[in-house]
This record gives sequence, C-alpha cells and structure tokens, in this order.
Amino acid sequence: MRIGELSRRTGVPVPTIKYYLREGLLPAGELTSPNQASYGDAHERRLRLVRALLEVGGLSVAAIGEVLAAVDEGDGPVHDLLGAAATRLVPEYGGGGGAVSGGDGDGDGDASAGGSAGGGAADAETVLARERVARLIEERGWRIASGNKAAEALVAALASLRRVGHGGFVELLDDYAEAAERVGRIDLDYVARRVAREDLVESVVVGTVLGDAVFAALRRMAQVDASARTFGKEASDV
Amino acid sequence: MRIGELSRRTGVPVPTIKYYLREGLLPAGELTSPNQASYGDAHERRLRLVRALLEVGGLSVAAIGEVLAAVDEGDGPVHDLLGAAATRLVPEYGGGGGAVSGGDGDGDGDASAGGSAGGGAADAETVLARERVARLIEERGWRIASGNKAAEALVAALASLRRVGHGGFVELLDDYAEAAERVGRIDLDYVARRVAREDLVESVVVGTVLGDAVFAALRRMAQVDASARTFGKEASDV
Repeated sequence: MRIGELSRRTGVPVPTIKYYLREGLLPAGELTSPNQASYGDAHERRLRLVRALLEVGGLSVAAIGEVLAAVDEGDGPVHDLLGAAATRLVPEYGGGGGAVSGGDGDGDGDASAGGSAGGGAADAETVLARERVARLIEERGWRIASGNKAAEALVAALASLRRVGHGGFVELLDDYAEAAERVGRIDLDYVARRVAREDLVESVVVGTVLGDAVFAALRRMAQVDASARTFGKEASDV
Repeated sequence: MRIGELSRRTGVPVPTIKYYLREGLLPAGELTSPNQASYGDAHERRLRLVRALLEVGGLSVAAIGEVLAAVDEGDGPVHDLLGAAATRLVPEYGGGGGAVSGGDGDGDGDASAGGSAGGGAADAETVLARERVARLIEERGWRIASGNKAAEALVAALASLRRVGHGGFVELLDDYAEAAERVGRIDLDYVARRVAREDLVESVVVGTVLGDAVFAALRRMAQVDASARTFGKEASDV
C-alpha cells in the first residue's frame, strides 16, 4: 500500500509516519519508483506498536528506538533476548535531576549546593536500600544478577521513600514482591505461549509497557474500592 | 534556616528551590527582613517530596502542583480526599497524540489523515474495552464509579493492546485484577495506620507514585526470574 493508505488505516498522519521513517522506528518501504514506496502489513503492525508505546506506554521516541532494536535482534538464547528487552524497558530513575533543569529558568549551575541528591557516592539511604534489595533477592531465591537494572531502579525508589520520611513503606516490600511474583509468572505464561521468536519478544515489550499501565490503573481502582470499604461508603463518586 | 541551609540539607540547588517557590510547589518562607526568608522542617519535608515525585515518580512540575493541592486541601470526608488524590495521579493516556507532535518537525496538521487514533468518537476497540472493564468492576464488586479516571486509563490501555494485535493479553485481566486487589489492600492498610490527616493524604501520594515505581521494578525482576526458570538458566546475567 502507499503511505496515504497506511495513514488512513492507522490514523497516524503522513508527516508523522515520515518522521518515524527518518528516526528508524519504521523500516523503509519497498521503492516502486524513485519517489514512491510501498508498505505492507508488517509496517502497519509496527506503526501500531510505536503508537501504543508512545501513547499508553509513555516512552520517548529514543526509548522506542532502543526497544525495537531489541525486538529486531534475532539471535541469542531466548532468555537473554527476553532479558535484553525487559531491561531496556526499565525507566531511568533518580540521580542527576535532568527533569528539573528543563523547567528551571535560572539554570542548575550552583556548584556550592551539590549534595547527596546530585549523584556521586551512594548516600546512607541508598546503602540501606541496596542491602534490603539484595536480601529480598536472596530470600525469594530470584535468579537475577544483583546489578540488574530493575533491581537498581528498586533501590532508587526505596531510597527515595526513606528520604521523604516514608521508610515505613519499605515494610510492605515482601507483600509487594509476593504480588509481583504472581504477575511475573502470569506474564511469562503469556509470553511462552507465543511460537514465533519475533512474536515472543514483541509480547514482552507490549506486555511489559502496556502491562504497567494496566496494573497501575487496576491498583488505583482497587485502592478506591478498599478506601470505600474502610471508610464505610456505600457507593463512590470517585 | 536560610535557603542556603535548606539547599545543603536536601542537595537541591538554590536556583531550583527558588523556581519551586515561584511555581508554588513550596510555600513561601517567613520573611525575616525585606530580602531574607526563613524556612522550617515543613519546607524541608515538602522539598524532599517534590524531588521524589519528580525523580522517581516521573511527574511533571504541573502535575506535582495539582497533587500537592490535593494534599493541602484540608476538608471533606477522608474517602473523598483519598479519591481526589489518587485520581489526580492517573497518567493521561491515549487520544490526541500530544507526545508525538513534540518531536515531529513536519507538524501534525494533515487533516486528511485524521482517524480512529486521533480522538473523537470511540472506535470498536474502545467500545469492547469499556464493556470488559464494566464487567470486571461488576464481577469483583468494586465500589467505584464507572467514569472513574483510573477505569478510563484501563480502557485506553486495553483498547491499545487490541489495536497492536495483543488482544490475548486481555485474558490475563482477571489474574492482574486479583494481584492488584491484594496490592490495593496492602496500600490502604499502610495509609489507614496514619493518624494525622495531612500525613494520610501524603501517604497516598507517596505510596501511589513511588509504589508504582516499586511494583514495576519488582515485576521486571520477577519476569527475569520466571524466564530463567522456564528457559532453564541456572544463574542469570541480565
């Protein structure tokens, strides 16, 4: 099909499709003349995946490029392939505060004010959090490396909870891990049913990114329900 | 304390603190002279909360402003207060594709290419997803309104899964809901232990935003472990 038809089928404007082509998120079409390319079902499917990762997954164009590279890498043992895809889907938390500088008209260049939040050596909260995560991995017998990126993201989140005076939340870790283990098993059962290798990694990407969105929404719904029960509301308007 | 001391204690640069003051994320200090303000423990705590929501929660400055407004609203029944805070923490998914336009040098103004992804009337996937979510709420007996923002986010995520050819993932919804219900109960038990009202809403904010990060990290760790077991790896390097 031509690019206009691809646009019509997916609802993605032609200039946006051209942008994805330039950024390498979509493979080039087959040239049918010097100025005309033809696109197939694989392009349509890939385009829908890009939109889902952007709109529901909230990933950046750069992050999507990396994730799709993992989907397209066709070799290596299945477990390594899954690990590579899952690991690239870990959000980059904490540290340099880049998200702040963007909106800060005064600039962030005050060298004298650098401190524990600015990176560098690990602070006390990070050391404690790292110990806690290592113990969790050991107690649950999880077969993951201690330097795993998701484990590092967990360390950052736990350290942050302590810093804001909610260290007590860390007590919930075992219960959270129990629920996460259940969800992780459900996820892998779904993935393992896939036959084709490309399908399998794509399932990990979709399931991980969109699965986060699904679970976060369900958790908020369950919270509202639990709150209604605890505080004795019959029906809720929130 | 002076602003320099507040900066030293929290590791947040002085210009960044001034930016938060201008944006209303931090209440003004007490003026001790026309050019000098004094800050207390409440400022320090609030500043750490702002950093945590930015760095670990990944919220924007505008979103943090809204969330803090919910924390500071001191009246109304507890359940409504919790609902207001939780609801403002739902990411805005799907629809207009604003995340795309930002990186699109060609502009998104191709009116002829507008389609199902561009908003407007609900497409078939959205209709199906909405029915599924309504059934889920009914079957689980969750006391939440059908127009709840988290429920709408769930509808968007499920519709997106169908659009990318992973409608099968929807079959996992009941298992996900089971795990989410468990986590939601854990969350509320934690919150209900708080005595002070401001503490309570702050707990919801912290627990919801940072709890998402904690759970997402644990889920990826559990996936790597499940993959190692399924595909027969003894130890993993991912």
